[in-house]
Amino acid sequence: MLISGYHAVESILIHRPELLIKVFISRSKDKRVLKIKSLIKNYQIHLELIESQKIDKIAGHSKHQGFLAEITKPGFLSEKDVIPRLNKLTTSRVLILDSIQDPRNLGACLRSALAFEFDAVIINKDGSSPINEYVFKTSVGAILNLDIFYVTNLSRTINSLKDIGFWVLGLDGNGEGSIFSEKFSSKTAVVLGSEGSGIRKLVKENCDHLIKIPISTKVESLNISVAAGIIMYELKKQHIN
Amino acid sequence: MLISGYHAVESILIHRPELLIKVFISRSKDKRVLKIKSLIKNYQIHLELIESQKIDKIAGHSKHQGFLAEITKPGFLSEKDVIPRLNKLTTSRVLILDSIQDPRNLGACLRSALAFEFDAVIINKDGSSPINEYVFKTSVGAILNLDIFYVTNLSRTINSLKDIGFWVLGLDGNGEGSIFSEKFSSKTAVVLGSEGSGIRKLVKENCDHLIKIPISTKVESLNISVAAGIIMYELKKQHIN
Repeated sequence: MLISGYHAVESILIHRPELLIKVFISRSKDKRVLKIKSLIKNYQIHLELIESQKIDKIAGHSKHQGFLAEITKPGFLSEKDVIPRLNKLTTSRVLILDSIQDPRNLGACLRSALAFEFDAVIINKDGSSPINEYVFKTSVGAILNLDIFYVTNLSRTINSLKDIGFWVLGLDGNGEGSIFSEKFSSKTAVVLGSEGSGIRKLVKENCDHLIKIPISTKVESLNISVAAGIIMYELKKQHIN
Repeated sequence: MLISGYHAVESILIHRPELLIKVFISRSKDKRVLKIKSLIKNYQIHLELIESQKIDKIAGHSKHQGFLAEITKPGFLSEKDVIPRLNKLTTSRVLILDSIQDPRNLGACLRSALAFEFDAVIINKDGSSPINEYVFKTSVGAILNLDIFYVTNLSRTINSLKDIGFWVLGLDGNGEGSIFSEKFSSKTAVVLGSEGSGIRKLVKENCDHLIKIPISTKVESLNISVAAGIIMYELKKQHIN
């Protein structure tokens, strides 16, 4: 996978240098070039100083700011890892994303999940955007620091979470409950579906409770990454208060 | 200004038909085509049924779903309108955006402002993204239903708001206060800056108080439209409780 831009390359060097295969930097005496060079020194990573136009060609675009890296795709966790990882937590926040296909929205949800210290993000393998360069970029590298689980069956995973004491809430425009008055359990998983179609029927039926974010009737819905940010914020706030 | 996509064209027909100059629809018996045709009947708007490829050419892209409209740019309010419009409100929420240059983030902020029933969005004329097709699209038409003020001097506007009883809060990563414990005044304006640079120095100095959204040290900041959504949500929640 190719990752471009100064912040993206720096983030990998700091958090997950073992993923790096090769780094390309445009020839320049820019301070940021020196910074990346000094970070790379600590590792045996192949570094190539080349012309910016050559980076354009390798990246397939010119929005790389002179920084490009080839990385091994980070390994994600799977359905069988969910319970062993979350079993022993007494306070826990989990985000479940059902079929989010827009990579930018997915990336922004991951960024907020790390910001509000979620223990896990669970994504359905089929029907969701793969973790690609756009997701990486909008997550601002959050995917490197999060426990992300790719599962084949979301409903089964939800039921396993319920078995170990999680309360599973679905965010739904027609939900009975309201986030304005909801009291969250100490172990809560929140499920969000895509902006167009919402949570799929069967997944929704497996939630303990459906709640909504009350909004003006002049707006059909919030942007999905904004809605996700709001519910994660509220959950974090209640868990620390 | 050209606006494309089914929802965008439908939204203008419903909320601001007077802005429409011309509508182009691709020849098809799609239900949505019939819907737009029936909406147009009520107005004297020039309708052209053409081939989808011709719409590609006029729009300059192919993501129009067969719906394109030419509209007059909606008129926005100016600095002199701020006080007359907001003077008499006893409970009021105002969003102030300082130099948001990314059109998608600006659009998403506007969508949330309408969702949480903000009375005004105040934007600095120089240094912000103009309201263009991308802003319109990500706002999902919210710009048609919001009071948007373009002002030349944000600091002066902030001081005028303070004069009529508004408490002006700036959202800042280094803010002393925390949104987790902040009690909002019944007349509150919140100021947000761009993701890279934050609120400009002078504007910040004119705020009554700076607050932050506490996040993990592993993340530098939230996406600006997510941060805006969270503070607008919290403000709305406190105003109805």
